[in-house]
Amino acid sequence: MLYELSEKIYKLENEGKRVIRLDIGEPDWRPPESAFRTLLDSLEDGRDRYASAAGELELREKIAELHGCDARNVVITPGSKWGIFMLLKLHLKSRDNAIIFSPHWPAYELICKSLKANPRILKLKSEDNWRINFASLEDAIDSKTKIIILNSPCNPTSHAWGEREERNIMELASERGIPLLVDDAYRDLCFRRRKERQLGDNLLIANTFSKTFGMTGWRIGYIAVPAEIAHKAVKLNQITINNVSVFLQMAASKAIEEKMKFAEKVRKICKRRAEIAAGILVRRMHFTHPNAGLYLFPKLPERIDTGRFLRRLLENGIAVAPGNAFGEYKQHIRISLCKREEILKKALDKIVEVVEECE
Amino acid sequence: MLYELSEKIYKLENEGKRVIRLDIGEPDWRPPESAFRTLLDSLEDGRDRYASAAGELELREKIAELHGCDARNVVITPGSKWGIFMLLKLHLKSRDNAIIFSPHWPAYELICKSLKANPRILKLKSEDNWRINFASLEDAIDSKTKIIILNSPCNPTSHAWGEREERNIMELASERGIPLLVDDAYRDLCFRRRKERQLGDNLLIANTFSKTFGMTGWRIGYIAVPAEIAHKAVKLNQITINNVSVFLQMAASKAIEEKMKFAEKVRKICKRRAEIAAGILVRRMHFTHPNAGLYLFPKLPERIDTGRFLRRLLENGIAVAPGNAFGEYKQHIRISLCKREEILKKALDKIVEVVEECE
Repeated sequence: MLYELSEKIYKLENEGKRVIRLDIGEPDWRPPESAFRTLLDSLEDGRDRYASAAGELELREKIAELHGCDARNVVITPGSKWGIFMLLKLHLKSRDNAIIFSPHWPAYELICKSLKANPRILKLKSEDNWRINFASLEDAIDSKTKIIILNSPCNPTSHAWGEREERNIMELASERGIPLLVDDAYRDLCFRRRKERQLGDNLLIANTFSKTFGMTGWRIGYIAVPAEIAHKAVKLNQITINNVSVFLQMAASKAIEEKMKFAEKVRKICKRRAEIAAGILVRRMHFTHPNAGLYLFPKLPERIDTGRFLRRLLENGIAVAPGNAFGEYKQHIRISLCKREEILKKALDKIVEVVEECE
Repeated sequence: MLYELSEKIYKLENEGKRVIRLDIGEPDWRPPESAFRTLLDSLEDGRDRYASAAGELELREKIAELHGCDARNVVITPGSKWGIFMLLKLHLKSRDNAIIFSPHWPAYELICKSLKANPRILKLKSEDNWRINFASLEDAIDSKTKIIILNSPCNPTSHAWGEREERNIMELASERGIPLLVDDAYRDLCFRRRKERQLGDNLLIANTFSKTFGMTGWRIGYIAVPAEIAHKAVKLNQITINNVSVFLQMAASKAIEEKMKFAEKVRKICKRRAEIAAGILVRRMHFTHPNAGLYLFPKLPERIDTGRFLRRLLENGIAVAPGNAFGEYKQHIRISLCKREEILKKALDKIVEVVEECE
């Protein structure tokens, strides 16, 4: 649903229509200058040949250092989506299930279904401030549960669970012997910095350069996982995507040196925008206050038909994502706060205006 | 086996060892200058954002024109390998089978197995000049046959089947209602130019920019297929690789404008190298004369142990691919002719020398 909307908008844009895209989690900040320079230098050095399906050693070593593991635990992927696809494919057989906390990134569910596995959706509530009910989690686990997915901060809520809550999930997963896949795409965007996770026996880390570094269209991410899983992922790369372009890996390898500084900068941007957005939307909508970037996930007043609202909004040149793309949240919308303040303010004012119109 | 060898050599190279890599089908010619320029311009224009999972319209339209179809038939992929993986995944369920003429690119077989489908290998013989026995082909097809793969020119033999032979396969596939997947990675390298295939109802075309344009590490290819298959492939892209970097698509879109001229140039290079190689190898080995680039697939004298031969060769700083990576051809080796003439001649002389040593 999210992807269909996206394709529809690409089409509108191809036809010359201008749309303010608050439907897509795409940072407006540019990648580090040094990444561009390294890309160009690498091309000039002829680093555009076939290469290892594991990824370049230099980059894998830097990533391994972040996560307290070895380069052989790290596999470079064209975006974290491919990493997540691989990890789900490697863990889920037909009729197995994966635990997914909802609202959730639609790809998890779609990937499970494409593997003929069952996404076992644990619906969380905004009224509970998205807290996880551990009793329900324990009940949801059965002998066919082969993976638990934790996306914290979460897309679409931008809610990062507390460190104790996360630790409890990890411990529970460990006790049950079920690998925990952590999708850390947004971790650098926590308003209060959280350090990189350290790789444990039971942990599968997926991450991307897209959000922190604004490198969405560069298509580069990674997984950090136990060595035998990494080995299988390399084998899967060999028969699918082969390798990520080396010149892009070199650029990412340069970018990662600036991670601390860069993340600090974008964290501030995210926080400021979230405050601005909250200040405007509070006039007409309920939402939980995020503790990370990039999104708000407000609830529309009950009498509003979300479909009609989204169409009206699109007629006004603004796209946001429908809540039911992320689970059973049809009264919600996901607003991506990825625009400069002036544009963002105007767009958010318009959103409130259209809410008022539709009421 | 091919990929393990490759990873082993990347490791040796990381350790500082120099290897003349005749094991890998990687052209030594550089991509068109205009492709580099367009890549840089596109980056400067900020064409590095999330984009359509189908690929950029501009590029898809140019490809569609080549194959006499519509842009909606074309999906851009990170290399043809991903295109082939998708097409096999979309056609093969567990226990279905795919007909593969052998010797064959190992990825076909590995992909089938990863999908729990059966690769049905039709072994061809160098003594028959790799001719296809139509009676065996008809016998091999059963109700579980869901796709036939034709790779002409073939990796590893560089044999392109005659146009009549190809037409016969197409007709047979059509009559049986079995889609024919044509992997045309090497088609531009036929010593006598063959025009691009026109998309038919029963045809699935996969191609890459890697070989013709020497853009191996740029990871860009495409499929041209019936619209409903393209639609499914886009959906699969959405949950896996998302999209190929737009700046790379723009570069490919520029490159394709020079396809005729560029292909003409590399065709001549391939032809000349094949002649040189044949002249040297004929001293000690049997092989069929290729009618396309990039390989020779000679047979070692019977008394030579191929494993021992390859190790000796690697000690001499030269890698070639073992024949059994491509099917039951353990006495063969695949030599990639992707080096400048002086280097190639020296390496081929050395290969002959090592054959003599091992005899």
